[in-house]
Order: sequence, then structure tokens, then C-alpha cells
Amino acid sequence: MLVAPRNPLNIGAAARAMSNFGCPHLRLVNPYKIAFREARSAVGASRLLATATEYPGVREAVADCSLVVGTTAVRHRELQHPLQRLEIGARLIRKKLASADVGLLFGPEKTGLSNEDLSHCHWLMRIPTRPEHISMNLGQAVAVCLYELIRDAKIKPERSTTRLAASAALDRISDSLFDALQISGYVNPKLAATATLKVRRMVRRLDLTDEDAETFLGMLRQILWKLRSKGGPES
Amino acid sequence: MLVAPRNPLNIGAAARAMSNFGCPHLRLVNPYKIAFREARSAVGASRLLATATEYPGVREAVADCSLVVGTTAVRHRELQHPLQRLEIGARLIRKKLASADVGLLFGPEKTGLSNEDLSHCHWLMRIPTRPEHISMNLGQAVAVCLYELIRDAKIKPERSTTRLAASAALDRISDSLFDALQISGYVNPKLAATATLKVRRMVRRLDLTDEDAETFLGMLRQILWKLRSKGGPES
Repeated sequence: MLVAPRNPLNIGAAARAMSNFGCPHLRLVNPYKIAFREARSAVGASRLLATATEYPGVREAVADCSLVVGTTAVRHRELQHPLQRLEIGARLIRKKLASADVGLLFGPEKTGLSNEDLSHCHWLMRIPTRPEHISMNLGQAVAVCLYELIRDAKIKPERSTTRLAASAALDRISDSLFDALQISGYVNPKLAATATLKVRRMVRRLDLTDEDAETFLGMLRQILWKLRSKGGPES
Repeated sequence: MLVAPRNPLNIGAAARAMSNFGCPHLRLVNPYKIAFREARSAVGASRLLATATEYPGVREAVADCSLVVGTTAVRHRELQHPLQRLEIGARLIRKKLASADVGLLFGPEKTGLSNEDLSHCHWLMRIPTRPEHISMNLGQAVAVCLYELIRDAKIKPERSTTRLAASAALDRISDSLFDALQISGYVNPKLAATATLKVRRMVRRLDLTDEDAETFLGMLRQILWKLRSKGGPES
């Protein structure tokens, strides 16, 4: 719910973030009329904006909500409500959402929610911005709050579809690379044994995939062929 | 880093989110000149925008970065890179940030990053938006990504400074409420014992703080005084 928003771009941005994160019901409390009209008539305005409902006051807008949470950037004002950081607040909201409708209130761009607005809230929530620059843009604040509500703490890293190369492939690369280096005169013959180990370790640090290992080996073999054809004893 | 942004409002919004979340270095790759100029001259443009640097291409912009991560909304295009959800991607970035500079790339509003842009990236990251509406506004996407980078998974709920009322206080309230109900004729004398228990349980469910319990008791006592002065035997 946006309380008295004044900028049509912010209303549009809030609606877009709600659509991105699957939050279907936008309510506007006493919006600046022209802003609401402009936001609605904007090209690309979402269905969400078309079905947004308007209320004269916070009391009416939250009437059917069992939990009402206000957002605030203010940390130093004497707050009469419990104030939670977004990470915690969103967790509490998610729990409630299973059994009840929750209203999330965002105040006007310049002033934020008034004490009168806040008195309709059960508790307050803040986005953990830097103390030197706490106040966020309205559309961005909505996006960040809704993202935290849908984020999945238990998500697993995407399994790579590529497999890492096995040791045999890495050895073929190490051997070919070593041969190329030796032919090129990179390897000091006295230190050849140490150099072999160095090359083997380095190749392992490359974290090559199966496919890349094959490509890399092909490159090396071509280079070796050229090196040998240029005048080595094998040419 | 914003690649070829066209909308001055988006450049400004990205800068604002970076300032909110403590990310000091904005780089613009081949921005639409007028957009960059307008964003810079906008009222309230941050210092961050004033010190933003401009590069002709992605290669030059990421030259000093040890990890380059591209953002994308596209899920179905045949991607040649590992793609992580933001929750995981941000964790990987945070780990790297301890020892290296990381570049986070956002593409142009309409098209996103090109394959040429992506070829400079180590891997890609996506914000978990709804499949039906995956594409986010640029300024909001920047805000959500940076928020995830700074969010604190281990944050504890803010300790309430208010203490919950102790049983003795709750009993004083239950007793007064019961008396008021009895005088008002709310309690069926035959069920008085059951009613006492009901009232006691209900008062406990209110989760009253110390302070609220005291206020509530004061209210009840005043009501009781009025009820009794109206013609009870004690009046």
C-alpha cells in the first residue's frame, strides 16, 4: 500500500516490482490524483495498476488485514513501535501470510509515514541502508522489500551441466604443455623434474571442464605439431 | 557498471541505490550521452554520480576487476555461462570481495547485455522474478542486487525494550475485568467459574507489555468505579 504517493513514476515502479515478485494487490491511500491518473495512463502500465484500489485513509485501506507493517527510514525519531530490520521483518511477515492477509505500508516520498499512519501498524520495518544515506527511492524500496519476501534462503547453487575434466585428461594436457615448453626452450634441463610438477599443479588450478580440456588439448597438440615440424629431431 | 543506459532516471536511481548500500564506484560503459549529462545535472544527484567514470567498452571497464558478473533476466536463451540465482550469486561475490575487485554488470534497458558483453563475464546472475514477468526496471534491479550483497543473514530480531507483564499484573487485570463484566450483567451466575477461566486465558493471549498492562488496569478501575457508583451495593 502506498500512502499519498506524489510521483507517477514511483507508483508505476511500485506496480512493476509487485508484478515482478508476484504481489497482486496494490492499494493507494489518498494518492495525489494527477500522479495516479498519469501512472495509470502510462505506456506499459501493468494490469496490476489498472486494478489498483484507492482509499481515503489508512484505516479503510488496512481494514481487512490481520497484520499491518509500516516501512520507515527513520531510526532516530522516538518510535512507539517495535522496529525490525527487513531480513527479520520479512521472515515474520512470511509466517503470517500463511494464515492471514498482511498489509505493507509505504509512506509519501518526502515525509514517510506520519504518526497517525503508523498508529494503524502492528510493527515497523526498515531496510538496512547506510547511516549516511538511509532514505531510499520509493520504487526501489518496494522492490527490495518484496524481493526479501520471496527470496529463498534454502536455494542451492545451480548444478553445472558441465563436468570437470578427470585427471587423465589433465595429465594429457600437462604432458603436452610440458613438451611444448621443453621444445620452446622454456624449461631449464637441470630443473625439468620440478618444472613437470609445477605444470601439473598449474593445470589443475585451471578448473577445466571436460569440454574445455578437450579443446585445450587440441590447441596444444596443434602447437606441438607446428613446433616439431619446425626443426626438432622429429620433424 | 551500467552498459549503455539510455534513461537518465535509471542512471540516477542506480547511483542512489549504490549510495544507500555503500557501493562507491559507478562505471558507465558507452552511456547515451544526453542521459548521462541529464542524470548528472539532476537536482539531488549524488557525489557518486559526479565521480562516475565513463568507458568506451566493457573490456576497458572491467580491466582491473578479478571477477566480472553479468546480470540477466533471460532464462531461456542458450546461455554459455553458469547462471546463479541472486541469493547464491551474491554469496559467491561476497566471498571474492574479501580479496579482489568485483565488477557487476547491468545491460541496457531494452535489450540487456549482449553476447559480446557477456563474454567478458565469469558467470551470470539473475533475480528470482516471476516467470510471467521476469524483466525488472534497471534502477530497481540494481537496488535489489546491492541489497542482497549487504543483507545480513545472521541478524537477530531487535530485542524489545518493553517487558511483557508478569502474571500478577495479568491477574489484577483479569479480576477487574471479571468484576466489571459481573456488575454489567455479562456473566451468567451459574457459569461464573467457567467465565473466570475464560477471562484469565483471554487476557493472557493479549501479550500485554508491563506498561500497557498498567494502562489497561487503570482504565478498568476507572470503569469499575463508575459502574459501582451507579448503584451497586458499594456505591
